[in-house]
Amino acid sequence: METIYTEKHKLRDAKTELCGGELVEPFERPSRAEYVLDRVRETGLGPVSDPDDFGMGPILAIHDAEFVEFLKTAPARWKVAGFNGEAIPTTWVGRRMSHIRPNHVEGQLGYYALAGETSLTEGTWEAAYASAQVALTGAARIRSGAGAVFSLCRPPGHHATADMYGGYCFFNNAAISAQHFLDHGAKRVAILDIDFHHGNGTQDIFYDRSDVLFISLHGDPLETFPYHLGHAEETGSGAGTGFNLNFPMPPDTPFDVWQAALHKGLARIAEYKPDVLIISLGVDTFETDPISFFKLKSDDFLTMGADVASAGLPTHFIMEGGYDVDEIGVNAVNVLQGFERANAS
Amino acid sequence: METIYTEKHKLRDAKTELCGGELVEPFERPSRAEYVLDRVRETGLGPVSDPDDFGMGPILAIHDAEFVEFLKTAPARWKVAGFNGEAIPTTWVGRRMSHIRPNHVEGQLGYYALAGETSLTEGTWEAAYASAQVALTGAARIRSGAGAVFSLCRPPGHHATADMYGGYCFFNNAAISAQHFLDHGAKRVAILDIDFHHGNGTQDIFYDRSDVLFISLHGDPLETFPYHLGHAEETGSGAGTGFNLNFPMPPDTPFDVWQAALHKGLARIAEYKPDVLIISLGVDTFETDPISFFKLKSDDFLTMGADVASAGLPTHFIMEGGYDVDEIGVNAVNVLQGFERANAS
Ligand SMILES: [Zn+2]
Ligand SMILES: [Zn+2]
Repeated sequence: METIYTEKHKLRDAKTELCGGELVEPFERPSRAEYVLDRVRETGLGPVSDPDDFGMGPILAIHDAEFVEFLKTAPARWKVAGFNGEAIPTTWVGRRMSHIRPNHVEGQLGYYALAGETSLTEGTWEAAYASAQVALTGAARIRSGAGAVFSLCRPPGHHATADMYGGYCFFNNAAISAQHFLDHGAKRVAILDIDFHHGNGTQDIFYDRSDVLFISLHGDPLETFPYHLGHAEETGSGAGTGFNLNFPMPPDTPFDVWQAALHKGLARIAEYKPDVLIISLGVDTFETDPISFFKLKSDDFLTMGADVASAGLPTHFIMEGGYDVDEIGVNAVNVLQGFERANAS
Repeated sequence: METIYTEKHKLRDAKTELCGGELVEPFERPSRAEYVLDRVRETGLGPVSDPDDFGMGPILAIHDAEFVEFLKTAPARWKVAGFNGEAIPTTWVGRRMSHIRPNHVEGQLGYYALAGETSLTEGTWEAAYASAQVALTGAARIRSGAGAVFSLCRPPGHHATADMYGGYCFFNNAAISAQHFLDHGAKRVAILDIDFHHGNGTQDIFYDRSDVLFISLHGDPLETFPYHLGHAEETGSGAGTGFNLNFPMPPDTPFDVWQAALHKGLARIAEYKPDVLIISLGVDTFETDPISFFKLKSDDFLTMGADVASAGLPTHFIMEGGYDVDEIGVNAVNVLQGFERANAS
């Protein structure tokens, strides 16, 4: 399997994350992608290629133009406003508040952010742009006939909505990839989000559409981030009703329970008959992940990959979360190896 | 004029405020009330009395019971959850997200907070309870015939809604006072909010009611906190339509412009014919306030007090903001002295 990767992800290198009332080193850090790349090479998974440049068009097909501009200019505006730390929102659009966008950068931060752990820094926009190009290049490979591709995206994307960032995400790589497929002949795309956290951004983007089936397996939002989306009751709206499927699961969920949900998700995908399958591949379901609470073991990721292969679809793996950095390479590549071995057998 | 005050405000003593991407000493600090009290004594404004205890009833007449319980228990729950800093939200209910309340304390923080600068600490609940009792005691004095009372409330209250805290506010002292008047014979109450910031909490609480007229003079939310409420277009809803009046003003607004808005507000109050007038008294309109942008001078606060006196109504002054701590005493008491001198002349 080919891997798409660029070093430009290193431009996303925040120094502070707001966590537990303290400013700590970010969990989402450059070494995450490095460890995954190392493991790709170590296992001989396949060639590693640079992304092509598809420009802004496919990003703007998903994201609001003013939001994109905000992400680009906010770090400099934040400094001009006189703030000394990294750009972290202190206000937001609370319940029953107005959705009018403020002018001041501090107010716009609160308007466009859906969480406060994600400092907005110089270089973030460039890294997010490159990450989207990685995903688009992966999609192009699938369109050209590849059975599977691994887009080693960083920063991740699945928490980003059309006009909100947070949860370490800025541009929604999976959504950008899905739209790219649809804009180039695909009739139906399925996105299966197996990151520990609910893919609230992807859900929000496609919530009223039937041409993208979104399925997410994740920690119950009553108990974990993103907290305010990802309930089983959220099944889509309007034309999208029935095309959003959430499997929230409680603390300490072991692999057999998780896998049962995966099988239900795959059954729905089989019924949907998509032209292509996108996997939002997070491995923060791992038992020692520092910010998550599932109990998957490294070997389970091999099984997971084989289960995904059973769908028999062109499959675009897009890297999302995973914060046990020492193990992220093994776990992520296990999914890909499990997929390949099942296809070979 | 009698002042109601209790030292219990000192129990609200957060060590950190999230500001500009850094954790700094809170602008809203105990010395604020001390300086105001010193000036009350220095000027011989009148007696200083302890509050009576009206219990939880009048607080629960405004605030959601689960919210009140949350404020009480969250600091201990936050520690139990393993967090080391003061309780600061990192997630919140962003636009288009679910309004289902999470179970986890981190998620509940995001559910109940409308801003992140306000660390939730041990002692905060007790101080907020005491602050509400100060306001209730002030209201009782007015009911007993006092023409004016100064409730030296701390923490302040006008940003707190029925079920959201933030902007240094937990219980909405002005709203609790207004409801107390209504529950004891008043037919109509006017709240005039002259703090630099929009009184979003007070507006939200009474937005669909005609028995409380809410008028706020403040920095344009396009440019300053609370950013997401306080526009001129917000005039009330349902039965409350026409009973909410906002005067947002731009950076560098001088007193003459501010005073013209005050006169419009007072004209609306005269037309409304309330039984009592509540003043949300913030003095962060002062020219050197560190977090605000109006240009009022100390003498202007005397004039402001005289203007308020011209309404000829029983007047309940409730302390809100003001962060140029060295000058907060002079400016706050200037309003009260201006009021008294106008009444005496
Ligand atoms: Zn995740
Ligand atoms: Zn204020």
